[in-house]
Amino acid sequence: MAPEMLPPGSVVGMLGGGQLGRMMALAAARLGLSVHVYCPDPDSPAFDVARAHTVAGYDDEAALAAFADRCDVVTYEFENVPARAAEVIAQRTLLRPGALALATSQDRLVEKTFLRKAGAEVAAFASIDRAADIDAAIAVTGLPAIVKTRRFGYDGKGQRKVESREALAAAVTELGGADLILEALVPFELEVSAIVVRGADGAAAVYDIGENSHADHILKQTRVPARIGAETAAAAAALGRRIADALDYVGVLGVELFVVRDDQGERLVVNEMAPRVHNSGHWTEDGAVTSQFENHVRVIAGWPIGSVATIAPTVMENLIGAEADAWAAIAADPKARLHLYGKAESRPGRKMGHVNRVGV
Amino acid sequence: MAPEMLPPGSVVGMLGGGQLGRMMALAAARLGLSVHVYCPDPDSPAFDVARAHTVAGYDDEAALAAFADRCDVVTYEFENVPARAAEVIAQRTLLRPGALALATSQDRLVEKTFLRKAGAEVAAFASIDRAADIDAAIAVTGLPAIVKTRRFGYDGKGQRKVESREALAAAVTELGGADLILEALVPFELEVSAIVVRGADGAAAVYDIGENSHADHILKQTRVPARIGAETAAAAAALGRRIADALDYVGVLGVELFVVRDDQGERLVVNEMAPRVHNSGHWTEDGAVTSQFENHVRVIAGWPIGSVATIAPTVMENLIGAEADAWAAIAADPKARLHLYGKAESRPGRKMGHVNRVGV
Repeated sequence: MAPEMLPPGSVVGMLGGGQLGRMMALAAARLGLSVHVYCPDPDSPAFDVARAHTVAGYDDEAALAAFADRCDVVTYEFENVPARAAEVIAQRTLLRPGALALATSQDRLVEKTFLRKAGAEVAAFASIDRAADIDAAIAVTGLPAIVKTRRFGYDGKGQRKVESREALAAAVTELGGADLILEALVPFELEVSAIVVRGADGAAAVYDIGENSHADHILKQTRVPARIGAETAAAAAALGRRIADALDYVGVLGVELFVVRDDQGERLVVNEMAPRVHNSGHWTEDGAVTSQFENHVRVIAGWPIGSVATIAPTVMENLIGAEADAWAAIAADPKARLHLYGKAESRPGRKMGHVNRVGV
Repeated sequence: MAPEMLPPGSVVGMLGGGQLGRMMALAAARLGLSVHVYCPDPDSPAFDVARAHTVAGYDDEAALAAFADRCDVVTYEFENVPARAAEVIAQRTLLRPGALALATSQDRLVEKTFLRKAGAEVAAFASIDRAADIDAAIAVTGLPAIVKTRRFGYDGKGQRKVESREALAAAVTELGGADLILEALVPFELEVSAIVVRGADGAAAVYDIGENSHADHILKQTRVPARIGAETAAAAAALGRRIADALDYVGVLGVELFVVRDDQGERLVVNEMAPRVHNSGHWTEDGAVTSQFENHVRVIAGWPIGSVATIAPTVMENLIGAEADAWAAIAADPKARLHLYGKAESRPGRKMGHVNRVGV
């Protein structure tokens, strides 16, 4: 055994107790690893499948330290882990992915700057920190454009599409007036994801590229393979790997890319990245040899990457809010593989589960 | 939804907290069901992945009643659930599989009598309750034969192969002198398993027949498909289904069969049955569309049976005792799907995990 492989029985800590933590915990258990979940919410779905859990805030340094001391490695299910929490943990045990990935992905301005430096094409962007920045920003992006908060946005929250200078000025005020980014609209044909897994030794693998569709800014469906050219798919995988390398990344990384089609053919524009298992990788649970959850756990524990080969074309559909009420019909569909997250309450926009259809 | 389908969030109770309970709990969690494990052993591997657990004895009627009151359905991972414990639970909630399956499989004499009545061929057998029964028993089975305790035997425990009347007399004394069964030796070519799943509505399905090999009386390997004729495989499946029907069974049932080859061709002799998920069905986790664990949970919860189709030929190998120390090499084998049970201590003969190799 390589000295850095954590043996079975080791404790994997997870910050965040939602469905991503739950699915990582299930994967860890299958490998004989023990899971400790840390989350402020006492009703966290991941608690149900973990050996231990801590209910405490991400600003509770004593609780974070005690948690870290019980874990052989700590990971997270969301990129908005406060920098100070990450620091407390990293001082006491392994934190994977590391602080650089967190810091980069928490701020859209830092992220876009990093991506460009890593050789990825991104939408034209400019920062807005005061009303006086508006004209210079429009000069960079043109109009219409999208104004976003630099931090803490997800599922379309904290962003507005604007068609005019006046609308932008209003949106800037509405979004707080500072720490904003204006992004050019990318005239994309479709959105795809590269789900990359990379180990501490630099070995990396990329799952087959998935094609995403959204409803109300929330991922609705991922289909694999994406309906793009083979060269574009290879380029998306190479780009995902390059980004992971540039971050010296350990874990699963989700990279969302726009596919732009023009008379030159297809080209890729990186939308954003997530330093964690990703909703657009849920198809791998049934459609790939090793799921993204198992591979994330494997590499943060120092284990080698499991095969990312696709078993058969797969379509993943999120069950959002009341859509999960159709569980009985889905359970009766012989093509459907149902996954439910154990959330007691269904709310509009809440991700309740997903369903994979393999070989379709 | 059919009225008898337990909705997500329902509580599935499990008697027994070993690896079978653990794998059932993982499958239940994926379906959004909540799991409560009951086991006397405070270090039960299944506790780590269950929402709730009770540490209490199977004779603690108050604890059993409190457990049953919190569960929408109760199942078990072992057939030696005391009849009184089953009764306490069945008076308060659904117990699946039911008391008939338990009572039948707990006693080899009752089981063999039942199997014969259900139309299965079994080895010639006779009961021994006193020394005076020995000659009559030998007249039925011939010698050599195998003498077994009627109850509580597993993995070769509580049985002796005997070649002579004297050896049998000694073994009878050694095994307690009563409640024994003498069975004729079956000159079998190989042993196979039928893993049957049957719902409360009578719908049933049988996984592809697996071929088992043992070492030191413990299952070592199951390979699917078994190397038997197509007619024999169909007959094994039909036999499994007939046995499940005769028990009005709800859940997964493991049926071990001997394949005897002579100049008439192949014929099947039922060795024994287990009213639970079965070690020889572990291949289904990676080699079949729906695992035996998920299908057991589905039908006890009143859900329809998931597809039992085989994805690709699969070989399952148990990791027994120190064999699990090879986990790092297995984790690095791209063909291997590793499953470890989270047991802290490896002991000789203890099942620590298993590995599935799919598409081999």
